[in-house]
Amino acid sequence: MLSISEKAKLFPYSPIRKLAPIAEAAKKRGIKVYHLNIGQPDIPAPQVAVDAVVNNISTSLAYTFSEGTSSYTDVLVKYYNSVNIPLDKSNIIVTTGGSEAIVFAMNAIFNSGDEILVPEPFYANYTAFAMQSDTVVVPITASIENDFALPSIESFEDKITDKTKAILICNPSNPTGYLYSKEELLKLRDLAIKRNLFIISDEVYRDFCYDGAIHTSIMEIEGLDQHAIMIDSVSKKFSMCGIRIGAIVSRNKEIMDVAMRLAQARLSPPLFGQIASEAAFSVSKEYFNDVNSEYKRRRNFLVEELNKIPNVVCPMPKGAFYVMVKLPVDSVDVFAKWLLESFSYEGATVMLAPASGFYATPGLGQQEARLAYVLNTDDLAKSVKIIEKAIEAYNNK
Amino acid sequence: MLSISEKAKLFPYSPIRKLAPIAEAAKKRGIKVYHLNIGQPDIPAPQVAVDAVVNNISTSLAYTFSEGTSSYTDVLVKYYNSVNIPLDKSNIIVTTGGSEAIVFAMNAIFNSGDEILVPEPFYANYTAFAMQSDTVVVPITASIENDFALPSIESFEDKITDKTKAILICNPSNPTGYLYSKEELLKLRDLAIKRNLFIISDEVYRDFCYDGAIHTSIMEIEGLDQHAIMIDSVSKKFSMCGIRIGAIVSRNKEIMDVAMRLAQARLSPPLFGQIASEAAFSVSKEYFNDVNSEYKRRRNFLVEELNKIPNVVCPMPKGAFYVMVKLPVDSVDVFAKWLLESFSYEGATVMLAPASGFYATPGLGQQEARLAYVLNTDDLAKSVKIIEKAIEAYNNK
Repeated sequence: MLSISEKAKLFPYSPIRKLAPIAEAAKKRGIKVYHLNIGQPDIPAPQVAVDAVVNNISTSLAYTFSEGTSSYTDVLVKYYNSVNIPLDKSNIIVTTGGSEAIVFAMNAIFNSGDEILVPEPFYANYTAFAMQSDTVVVPITASIENDFALPSIESFEDKITDKTKAILICNPSNPTGYLYSKEELLKLRDLAIKRNLFIISDEVYRDFCYDGAIHTSIMEIEGLDQHAIMIDSVSKKFSMCGIRIGAIVSRNKEIMDVAMRLAQARLSPPLFGQIASEAAFSVSKEYFNDVNSEYKRRRNFLVEELNKIPNVVCPMPKGAFYVMVKLPVDSVDVFAKWLLESFSYEGATVMLAPASGFYATPGLGQQEARLAYVLNTDDLAKSVKIIEKAIEAYNNK
Repeated sequence: MLSISEKAKLFPYSPIRKLAPIAEAAKKRGIKVYHLNIGQPDIPAPQVAVDAVVNNISTSLAYTFSEGTSSYTDVLVKYYNSVNIPLDKSNIIVTTGGSEAIVFAMNAIFNSGDEILVPEPFYANYTAFAMQSDTVVVPITASIENDFALPSIESFEDKITDKTKAILICNPSNPTGYLYSKEELLKLRDLAIKRNLFIISDEVYRDFCYDGAIHTSIMEIEGLDQHAIMIDSVSKKFSMCGIRIGAIVSRNKEIMDVAMRLAQARLSPPLFGQIASEAAFSVSKEYFNDVNSEYKRRRNFLVEELNKIPNVVCPMPKGAFYVMVKLPVDSVDVFAKWLLESFSYEGATVMLAPASGFYATPGLGQQEARLAYVLNTDDLAKSVKIIEKAIEAYNNK
C-alpha cells in the first residue's frame, strides 16, 4: 500500500515543472524568455467559434447529454465520415479534452497491474493517466537517428507479457512530430490481432501534416473495429486548448459502454466548449490550409537553422508542431537550467523542454530537447541564434 | 482480472437510466412528463456571469493554470474566508466540476482494495468514482424515520477495517436534503482522528439551507486540517451545471500535492467556465436570499402537500433541493415505471427517481423516491396531484 507521498513520487518526472520558476526568475531580472517548451499554439481560434458562444449564451446553463450535445456529435460524425472514417454517433463520446478520453479508455481496458506498450519518447502525461488505472507503461525505444519511426515489431513482441493489454501511439507524435505511415499501422494491426491487444491512437495532431503527407487514422485500418480507440481534441485542431473539448472514438461496443458509464458519472462535458467546437467545424478547408502553411514555414525555418549549428542534429518531421533536436551538450537538463539561470544573448534566452521527461527508460535522451514551433519566425530566428551562442558559451565554460 | 463487460456491471445501478427511454416514449404519446427526478435547477444563472464571458471572450483560448486562473482562485479564497473558512490559494485547486474534485481526492487517498464509509442513501455516482480508484464503498444506513440524520458513530465503528481510509458525506445531502449539525460533524471528527481517517465532505449544496439553519463546513471544524477535504462546485450554487467548474479544497499538503499532479496531467480546467464563475461570485447576498426563498417556498409546498396524501411520509429537510419521500406502494421501481408506461392524469405524469439507486445495501429504499424541487410551484402542485391519483390507481389495480 502506498502512502500519499509515495504516490506523488510515481508521477512522471517533469523537467519543465522544475524549470518554470527559474524562467519566472529570469523574467524578473529583465531577461526576455522565448518559450520553445510549450505546446500552446499562438494561432487564433476561428472567429466563428467565438461568435457562436456569444450568440448562443444565455442564463440557462444546463448539463448537456453526458455523451455530448446531439448537434455537436452530429457534426463530429459528419467530419469523421468526410475524412474516411465511417462511424455513427454510438461510436463517439465527447470528453473534457483529449486527457479525459485517454483516462476513459484506460479505465475501460485495464485492471490493476496491467501493462501498456508505448513508443518512447512519449507525452509524459501518459504515465500520469496510466497511474490512475494502476497500469504500468512499458516503453519501446525509438531513436532520433531513425527519425523516431515506429520501433521494430520484434521490439514490441519482446516486451509483451500476459499483463499486456494495449499499445498507445501518438500520431503524429508529440514530442517527435513523427507521422506514422499506413505500412507501420498495418504492422501494428497484425501484432494487435495476433496478440489480442487494443491500440489507443492519440490523434489530436491529426490535422497537422506537411509536405503532402496524408494522415492515416487507426480508425481507417481494416480489421481493427474491436481493437482501435482514437483520441481526438479541438485543442490543437482549432487552437482552442482552454475550452477543454475532446472525444473518445471507437467501434468496440464494450469499450464505449464503459466509457459511457464513466461519462454519465461525471455528468456532462463543458457546455460553452461544445458550442464553440460545433461552430469551429464549419470553417473552410482554407482555414486548415492557412494554419498548415504557417506551421510548415516555421518548421522548415527552424529545422534548417538548427541543422546549421555545428553538431546539432534535427530530423524534419512530417506532423504536429514539435521537433526533437540533439544538441552537442553533456546534459540538456543541465543546459536548459543554465540557459535560464546564467545565460542571455542580447537580453534574451530560451526555455527548452529537456527530452529526459519524454523517455521512461532512465538515462535516455540526455542530449535531446523538444522544441515547439508555436512562435512566429522572427522569434524562432532569435531563439535559434540564442541556442547557437549558448552552446558555444556552455561548452567553453 | 475483470473483462470489460464485467467492469460495466460494477457501475452503480441507475433506475433513472432505465426510465429515461420510457419517459421519452411517454412524451411521444403526447403525455406531459414532470421531471421530479433530476437535480438540474431551473433558476437562471447570474446575468453577470454570462456578461463576463461575452465581454472577455477572444480568439486567444489558451490553457489556464492547472490549478485555475489566478484571478479566480483569488475570488475563491476571498469567498471562503468570508464564510468562516480561512485558507489560502495553496489549499484550492479548480476542477472540472465537483466530480473531478472527488476523483482527485479518491485517487490521492486510495490504493486498490481500500474502503470508504458513506452514509446511505447517497449520490449514486460516488460508487462510479470509487471504482476508478478500485475502492469499495461501504454503506452506513441512515433512515427516513430519523430524517436521515447521521447514523450512530458505533455503526461507523462497526464497519471500520484495516482497509478503511476515509468517510464521505454530502452536506447538505443529495438525495435526502439532510443538513448535518455541527455536533454531528464533531462526532465524525473525533472518529476520524481516533481511527486516522480522511473526511471527504461534498458541500456543493452548501448555499442552500433553510429555516435559518447555518451550514457548517468540514473545513470549519478544528483539528481536522490533515483530515478534511471539501468538494465544492458552482453547478448548483449559481445554477451553472453546464459550465463544469468545481474545486477541491484541503489544508493537507500531501493531498493537494497529488491533486496538483493530477490537475497538471489534465492540463487545465475549462477557461470559459472560470470566467463565468469568477464573475458569479460578485453577486450580492440578495441573489442567494432570493434563490433560497424560492427553494424554501417550493420545499414547504411540496413537503406539506405530499404529507397530505394518505400514508405518504416526507421529512422536511433543511438543505439542498431534494426530499426523500416514502410512498405506500410495494416497489417504487415498479411504480415509477408504471407511472411512465401506464398512467396519466389530465394528460400528464411524473418521473421519479426510485431510491433503490441511492442505497448500496440491496433491498433498502424500496418504498422511497427522491424528488427534486427544481420546478415552479404550479408544476409541483400538478405533480403532487398526479402522485396522489397514481397511488390510488396503482394500489387498486
